Amino acid sequence: MTSPVGATDRTSVRRFPEKAVKDRSEVNAILDAGLVAHVSCVVDGQPFVMPVGYARDGDRVLFHGSTASRLFKNLAAGQACCFTVTLLDGMVLARSAFESSMHYRCVIALGSCVVLEGDEKEAALIRITDHLLPGRTDEARKAAPKESKATLMLALNLDEVSCKVSEGDPDDVPSDLTDPIYSNIWAGYVPMKEVFGEPVADPMTTEKNIPTPDYIKKWKR
Amino acid sequence: MTSPVGATDRTSVRRFPEKAVKDRSEVNAILDAGLVAHVSCVVDGQPFVMPVGYARDGDRVLFHGSTASRLFKNLAAGQACCFTVTLLDGMVLARSAFESSMHYRCVIALGSCVVLEGDEKEAALIRITDHLLPGRTDEARKAAPKESKATLMLALNLDEVSCKVSEGDPDDVPSDLTDPIYSNIWAGYVPMKEVFGEPVADPMTTEKNIPTPDYIKKWKR
Repeated sequence: MTSPVGATDRTSVRRFPEKAVKDRSEVNAILDAGLVAHVSCVVDGQPFVMPVGYARDGDRVLFHGSTASRLFKNLAAGQACCFTVTLLDGMVLARSAFESSMHYRCVIALGSCVVLEGDEKEAALIRITDHLLPGRTDEARKAAPKESKATLMLALNLDEVSCKVSEGDPDDVPSDLTDPIYSNIWAGYVPMKEVFGEPVADPMTTEKNIPTPDYIKKWKR
Repeated sequence: MTSPVGATDRTSVRRFPEKAVKDRSEVNAILDAGLVAHVSCVVDGQPFVMPVGYARDGDRVLFHGSTASRLFKNLAAGQACCFTVTLLDGMVLARSAFESSMHYRCVIALGSCVVLEGDEKEAALIRITDHLLPGRTDEARKAAPKESKATLMLALNLDEVSCKVSEGDPDDVPSDLTDPIYSNIWAGYVPMKEVFGEPVADPMTTEKNIPTPDYIKKWKR
């Protein structure tokens, strides 16, 4: 690790270095705010990128998949992995198309995964459920041995990390700000966020008239 | 191409094949609903995954980056690329942790990118702006020659594509549905969507009292 955030030559932010985040607590906050990561692994020279649910656990991230998945088998074998979490926060409208962009928070971690087994695996399963479905662990049935066996649980240490945050007003070309046409168009940003809708009960839940639990009603993004 | 959607041995859906989408119009609809793709390329055996804004243009996707970016240089050189778009639609609460999951729509395209130049590049720049910031093209300043030169515009043909959609009620283990405890917990899903907030004008726009254009007010997700 060459910096608090874990930047190395491979993960130093070269484009827009002013957007680079050096603070590990900010990296952690981004990872804790996300639900889905995009994970890549190389198979026969071809990279594959798949979405996975995940959770942060201290200085590592946890994610799982099927023991039957090609990508997960390769990751379990310790092949090079890239784990990327992107939160899209808004659309930025500059006076020029070139300077128009997005607000985002992005964490990229590189490394090799390790496979978790036994108690560590059980704890990781609960950790992921707690992150993705807070409150659910107390109620839902925990993984049966057969189910746990069919699940490959991977951990990636946050040793080599890049983090970039783009926020604030558009960064216009100075000449556009004095141009008689372009200085008179609307510029700014339109925030975006993910929101939860009303919970939808399945037919058996509806039939039995089971009320929506409070822990679900409290979910916010 | 071995199927209407462009599935090959590398992109056939092996996990949950019942979720595989075979219809190209559905693939197109997912790509048209997304704003950000996660693109991967391999550098020295290490995959890198980066978020990019993009647009679909017929049977290909367009995205751009800086001519100074390592990843984009590698993609421009025709190295193997994976382009993934994931739309997260909800959290699925089954009676067991194992069957709990997410609603999502995901398109994965493999191939090598080509670099667009000249008129094709200019048209692609406009196409991307039209997709990400609908209505903005008429107002914003178009790319100056210097700006266009600093932009690497890539196209990836949708020849080798995988598409998976997860929706509907939880798919519980039958024994949980008759279990005295687990059959009595709430099960279903909580829909999610991305929404736009109120547009935020930058200081000059506010000072000049420039009203928010209708085309921005109309943005919906």
